[in-house]
Amino acid sequence: MAAAEPTAHALIAQHRPTLDQALEAIRTRAYWSPHPEHPKAYGENGSLDAAAGKAAFDAVLHTRLDLGQPGTDDWVGGEVSPYGVELGVTYPHADVDTLLPAMRAGQGAWRDAGAELRAVVCLEILKRISDRTHEFAHAVMHTSGQAFMMAFQAGGPHAQDRGLEAVAYAYAEQVRTPGTAEWSKPQGKRDPLALTKSFTPVPRGIALLIGCNTFPTWNGYPGLFASLATGNAVLVKPHPRAVLPLALTVGVAREVLAEAGFDPNLVALAAERPGEGIAKTLATRPEIRIVDYTGSTAFGDWLEANARQAQVYTEKAGVNTVIVESTANYKGMLANLAFSLSLYSGQMCTTPQNLLIPRDGIRTDEGAKTFDEVVADLARSVDGLLGDDARANALLGAIVNPDVKARLEAAAGLGEVALASREVSNPEFPDAIVRTPVLVKLDGARKYWEGTDDEAAYMGECFGPVSFAVAVDSAADAVALLRRTVREKGAMTVGAYTTDAEVEQAIEEVCLEEAAQLSLNLTGGVYVNQTAAFSDFHGSGGNPAANAALTDGAFVANRFRVVEVRRDA
Amino acid sequence: MAAAEPTAHALIAQHRPTLDQALEAIRTRAYWSPHPEHPKAYGENGSLDAAAGKAAFDAVLHTRLDLGQPGTDDWVGGEVSPYGVELGVTYPHADVDTLLPAMRAGQGAWRDAGAELRAVVCLEILKRISDRTHEFAHAVMHTSGQAFMMAFQAGGPHAQDRGLEAVAYAYAEQVRTPGTAEWSKPQGKRDPLALTKSFTPVPRGIALLIGCNTFPTWNGYPGLFASLATGNAVLVKPHPRAVLPLALTVGVAREVLAEAGFDPNLVALAAERPGEGIAKTLATRPEIRIVDYTGSTAFGDWLEANARQAQVYTEKAGVNTVIVESTANYKGMLANLAFSLSLYSGQMCTTPQNLLIPRDGIRTDEGAKTFDEVVADLARSVDGLLGDDARANALLGAIVNPDVKARLEAAAGLGEVALASREVSNPEFPDAIVRTPVLVKLDGARKYWEGTDDEAAYMGECFGPVSFAVAVDSAADAVALLRRTVREKGAMTVGAYTTDAEVEQAIEEVCLEEAAQLSLNLTGGVYVNQTAAFSDFHGSGGNPAANAALTDGAFVANRFRVVEVRRDA
Repeated sequence: MAAAEPTAHALIAQHRPTLDQALEAIRTRAYWSPHPEHPKAYGENGSLDAAAGKAAFDAVLHTRLDLGQPGTDDWVGGEVSPYGVELGVTYPHADVDTLLPAMRAGQGAWRDAGAELRAVVCLEILKRISDRTHEFAHAVMHTSGQAFMMAFQAGGPHAQDRGLEAVAYAYAEQVRTPGTAEWSKPQGKRDPLALTKSFTPVPRGIALLIGCNTFPTWNGYPGLFASLATGNAVLVKPHPRAVLPLALTVGVAREVLAEAGFDPNLVALAAERPGEGIAKTLATRPEIRIVDYTGSTAFGDWLEANARQAQVYTEKAGVNTVIVESTANYKGMLANLAFSLSLYSGQMCTTPQNLLIPRDGIRTDEGAKTFDEVVADLARSVDGLLGDDARANALLGAIVNPDVKARLEAAAGLGEVALASREVSNPEFPDAIVRTPVLVKLDGARKYWEGTDDEAAYMGECFGPVSFAVAVDSAADAVALLRRTVREKGAMTVGAYTTDAEVEQAIEEVCLEEAAQLSLNLTGGVYVNQTAAFSDFHGSGGNPAANAALTDGAFVANRFRVVEVRRDA
Repeated sequence: MAAAEPTAHALIAQHRPTLDQALEAIRTRAYWSPHPEHPKAYGENGSLDAAAGKAAFDAVLHTRLDLGQPGTDDWVGGEVSPYGVELGVTYPHADVDTLLPAMRAGQGAWRDAGAELRAVVCLEILKRISDRTHEFAHAVMHTSGQAFMMAFQAGGPHAQDRGLEAVAYAYAEQVRTPGTAEWSKPQGKRDPLALTKSFTPVPRGIALLIGCNTFPTWNGYPGLFASLATGNAVLVKPHPRAVLPLALTVGVAREVLAEAGFDPNLVALAAERPGEGIAKTLATRPEIRIVDYTGSTAFGDWLEANARQAQVYTEKAGVNTVIVESTANYKGMLANLAFSLSLYSGQMCTTPQNLLIPRDGIRTDEGAKTFDEVVADLARSVDGLLGDDARANALLGAIVNPDVKARLEAAAGLGEVALASREVSNPEFPDAIVRTPVLVKLDGARKYWEGTDDEAAYMGECFGPVSFAVAVDSAADAVALLRRTVREKGAMTVGAYTTDAEVEQAIEEVCLEEAAQLSLNLTGGVYVNQTAAFSDFHGSGGNPAANAALTDGAFVANRFRVVEVRRDA
């Protein structure tokens, strides 16, 4: 490590202030971010501006992304953008019997580096990713189908924030125990018993990150950086349709690790052949001691049941509910909901699916509204929001895969269509499949224990631009259905609109008892499906939608262990 | 909660200073304890002195311990002290379909009390237990078979320390996130986005504590208090041979909860009929969301595999190793080891089992010693320590159950006996089975991959007063066998004696890589099998002996979740 010492000092000098700010932010949970959201903020101090970022993205297309990994036995790749562009990038396919031992080789030095140096190396990785935010934005856009601005913000600064947040939590957790302690126990008139103790955070082993299609960086960075910052090597297994953003990430991490004097194999990529399904094989390898996963409930449950040698952190499917009981800002509510349903074509784990509305209507600042009026007004709001094709394209992005399209098309048959989905053409990418959301009326009251078809629809996750306006008997009925939905199906988010203190309290109580994150009466520019790093928790880890929250102490505390060595003083 | 307010303020005023000291102690890991170790320290300020404690214990014998629990359908009990005394206490046998719902009823108020009030209520419970330490000492002695002084210290102040440590960790973890936050995100020239957020720690549900025979309070209190302090109700399922200490604990907890205005059913006892095996039934109930367990590897593994609806914290079996390579204090080493092997007849999960000694002997401050000399000298040290029957009884306690006695008797057939076990008579309790430890020579070098009988002996846990002096080829051989033992069998403790810096480093490296807690060159009054709360970790949670450490952030962080409610500001 002698050769790396100057680098270590430089990295600490450069990044320690940011780390300290992050530590303060997670303590106060006030607004904070070091990563600019505006595309024009980039282009100075070594960061790529819009043109340079686009050029960097274009330059990687149709190339072999050679990460210099050991055990590369082949090159694989076949990503096709939801916007219709073939990416043509190939990635190393690993012989894991060679790669995994190579990943362990550098763990001793990484462990010995200590929590602070690991943290600032992680911050340097994030800094270089941040500098390339424009390039990453295109990579996220053309794998997830997000519109450019969303890919830029959610895939760039917001994902980097979540990574930094995980580093801050990991650092804080590791330094709760001091490196050394002198222990002296009085023995009356005899000499005290005295011991010198050292405490070392040690990694669990190799961590496996299983990436998702829709938010490869945003959902991937917390686990990646939490594991790396706690001393583990990290093997990144991206979704086959969204390899590039994480492959670029692995490339940056390897570059920074090597420059800082560490083994670049502490971070590696495991791309796969179509249909190879290596996640199962990797997740149950004895070397893998941590798994982070975002995706389907079925595979998340499989991981929890089978990757028993590992700590498994999963974000799975859920059914998100918004109760619409009454409002003091009818227009604001409609606008807010319309945006939530439309953003990224509803392809967020946090998008509301079921809108529970009393069949007798609701009280508003514009007078009483019937169930049908509320639904029709919401449909009009969505229509208005997406009426202009350019704006629709900018909000909706593209449908990420054929399954979502199929679900969208089937949804119209589930009930009375209050708002039909329409095709939007994208002049820049004519092959992109762009659709506005469908809103379907269902009847929930008196039926949710009877197993009707309506129930089958609203009690299952219908991932994509599909929402159900579910008529309920009363506020109490809505609250009961909310409880049942969260308990049985899980929820990443719950929303509610009410001016009634008792109803509000009942909804809060359900969320506290069933561990669901609640947004109340949002009528401005914050949406139920968005969370901010350092302040909002993403998921609760306490209902079936996810067994972990982004990010809290529990997300990092078990990624390392503390080994104590004690000696007579 | 209005009626409880004065009590809440009084409890906070009384116990907050102790909580703050505990928080400081876990941060510095210097020596600290608020619970006196000396029996004579009790008898003032409401605590029971020796005579009063003994009288209280005698008064509970042959009675029905009515805890006032709902759903009591029967009374059960049949504890017989390892010292030969029938306790004759009966306990409520629960109809769990009545008891579990009753335990949930008070959880809302307990959650709403908040982290600080929960912590000081826990401290009041510990204070009242502390006041009755003499009474608890007899209860621990006559269920575990520990000698009185050990039952007093380990079952009293040390267990209370571990409980308080868990409360401190639980409190610290819950207040890492503030109760409320104002979040304001700049929007350039427009008004900032502003939200008011609240964050509430919420319990997972009902926690199940499955107690053990040998350390009912010491091993039980961390889980019990960690779960209670994080807002969960706790159902205590004691070992059928060690019900009384935990039943008394439940009684105190229920009394304090009720006085503080909470539902006493937040803590309840689940005693069982002989052979009923209710642990399996309870651990897989949907209401049970946390399980703490100390005991056999087989049942620990079963819990981890089957109690999938719960967070499961287990301490299982392991094979503890001491490497004896060289020493600068031969006499001190022998005395230290002799004590470690003898204390509580080796019936501690931390007692060394395998002493790895180079067959060519070791260097010492008294010159070179052959393998046979080291073993013979150690045998003499144990003999000397236990030569006097009164002292032997005070150190050894009684054999806790017939299985331990059978293993001890079988051990003499495993190899050359270097020190035979002898029977010690106990004049006060003539039916107690008291035995000195057996030390058996085995050959480890060149054999540990061949599957010899020697290997079968030293690679399996032989819980009780049995140790093996295993001849190894070299220090390197010892280090390799240590690694293999920890990796395959787990270890709660590792000890080593060496004056060689390279050997020391190699042993440390193994402990860091395999996550084992290491005591180096202990020759004074601290023993490898003892750990001190607030400073030492008990287990690492990173090798097969235990999946959790007592106590760290990971032990508490997942016992609750944080629910956020956010509103437009």
